[in-house]
Amino acid sequence: MSSPAEQPSTPWSKAWGLRVPVVNAPMGGVAGGRLAAAVTAAGGLGLIGMGSAGSVAALRRELPFTASLGGRFGIGLVGWVLDAEPELLDVAIEAGPALITVGFADDSGWVDRVASAGIRTAAQVYNADDARRAEDAGIDVVVARGLEGGGHGAPDMTTLPLLDAVLKDVLVPVLAAGGIGSPASLAAVLAAGASGAWLGTRLAACSESLLHDAGRRAMIAADGSDTVLTSVFDIAMELPWPTRFPARVLRNEFTDRWAGDEDTLRTDGEARISVRAAAESVDPRIAPIDAGQGVGMITSVESARDVVTEMCSGAAELLTGPSPT
Amino acid sequence: MSSPAEQPSTPWSKAWGLRVPVVNAPMGGVAGGRLAAAVTAAGGLGLIGMGSAGSVAALRRELPFTASLGGRFGIGLVGWVLDAEPELLDVAIEAGPALITVGFADDSGWVDRVASAGIRTAAQVYNADDARRAEDAGIDVVVARGLEGGGHGAPDMTTLPLLDAVLKDVLVPVLAAGGIGSPASLAAVLAAGASGAWLGTRLAACSESLLHDAGRRAMIAADGSDTVLTSVFDIAMELPWPTRFPARVLRNEFTDRWAGDEDTLRTDGEARISVRAAAESVDPRIAPIDAGQGVGMITSVESARDVVTEMCSGAAELLTGPSPT
Repeated sequence: MSSPAEQPSTPWSKAWGLRVPVVNAPMGGVAGGRLAAAVTAAGGLGLIGMGSAGSVAALRRELPFTASLGGRFGIGLVGWVLDAEPELLDVAIEAGPALITVGFADDSGWVDRVASAGIRTAAQVYNADDARRAEDAGIDVVVARGLEGGGHGAPDMTTLPLLDAVLKDVLVPVLAAGGIGSPASLAAVLAAGASGAWLGTRLAACSESLLHDAGRRAMIAADGSDTVLTSVFDIAMELPWPTRFPARVLRNEFTDRWAGDEDTLRTDGEARISVRAAAESVDPRIAPIDAGQGVGMITSVESARDVVTEMCSGAAELLTGPSPT
Repeated sequence: MSSPAEQPSTPWSKAWGLRVPVVNAPMGGVAGGRLAAAVTAAGGLGLIGMGSAGSVAALRRELPFTASLGGRFGIGLVGWVLDAEPELLDVAIEAGPALITVGFADDSGWVDRVASAGIRTAAQVYNADDARRAEDAGIDVVVARGLEGGGHGAPDMTTLPLLDAVLKDVLVPVLAAGGIGSPASLAAVLAAGASGAWLGTRLAACSESLLHDAGRRAMIAADGSDTVLTSVFDIAMELPWPTRFPARVLRNEFTDRWAGDEDTLRTDGEARISVRAAAESVDPRIAPIDAGQGVGMITSVESARDVVTEMCSGAAELLTGPSPT
């Protein structure tokens, strides 16, 4: 990368008209329109996330926050949710975003539909084979997502060697994701050749996210060793996430009890009731809170705009030396 | 870091008199005196590794290769091996290396003994708590070792968020380890503030290592998704590795069969005989070959001197732009 000192940029971020090479992960139930608008306002590309609870109604609730952005936002959907409600993709396309990504999809049929509407596409990849397949499917930018990332994903490679492997094998721009929670880790992936960073956890704790305050407090209290990769919440909440995509969450009483004992959990009605109640009452001792290993970098509730700006200027300084004053 | 374009350097590498900020991991049975001498010759600090099969006799076999280095080498030992043969530490100290590290130790009693002989100390850490304890024990440099690294280690954080967390919490210099197998990933950890890199897998495949050729060929054939973190070989070979330190190895027929079925393995005499036979006959389908997720960056057998030089000059170019010619 080459850049002036104050703002990092890459050929990709310039080509896409972004002031900074940052995209927020479309975290379900967390990345609403307000977060997306804040990230775009900071110079990156803000994404609305429709996760396992995504729906046409939920998307329509979030879209107004991005109405003034002139299309400078994106939408992230979940493949198996689309299977149940295909209109969700229609509504997303009609919203006219700059980018659509569909994660956890069985096939790449959505890519041509989105591309033919003049909208760019992104896909998460977990290894070099995934990346080659995404490139072959015509994806515009691949997201190399390491297993240290928060939320759902395939537990395969970690961010740094994954980025190496993907950059070696594809020509399409590559964003790095997973565990990037500081100016230093942003500088790291840009130095390694990433076209940008895809930030989740660090932005989930920001004031503009849809996360409940108890979740923000739990994130502030946690460090990077306090996460666990597990399917126990999906099992307990009877969500049809494919088991090859566990979620990285904050470790709590529920994961301590049930991780490793999934077969019993499947038949334990009481545990399933308790986790649903905790999710409603927002009790972080029992409820799922997605978080990656970068969670330790969160020390207070900040605005997403400030976080993006501080991470980017800090990364620029690490990469080019302090700016002359 | 600030540096001329051709060779990266850091305040730590300069203070330690190294031309490049690279140390090789003291890989048991792999990092002998020839590898250590080659890494030192390339400007880094070469380490002799005494692993689970380490002994006074084995160390004495490797030391002559470093005799001409004027003490510019290090020695890495394993805590539970030292418990069985305490003289190994005496012999290591008498050899007059620049650095001694004892991994997988129950306590830090070795640190004062080594330091009082005027020898510097390093310790691997897996999270910020470990790092603070190492700093309190007087360790001179901590090695933040992510779970993507090859060989034995605690499966906790991955390299990038671990480096962030450790740099935030300690003042002692921090080397990054785990998954660093290319100029790009070396540039990444230096940009993030590491004082240097601790390289394992990439150097294990080099011509100067003690690894058998079948192991080198298996590494060349593998990509970063082909490793698995497991204790099955330690169980099968009845090695007293604490189970909190599994090893990352190349996935093969043996790991496919036994990972997840450890209780059966403990009582399966035939499996135990087969793995010992495979280790002796060097059959990579059954035998353990330590490898981290950076293994995909290995495409041929090169000299360690060339690998260190190419990684460092490539990293310098990524960090400072191409050198003027």
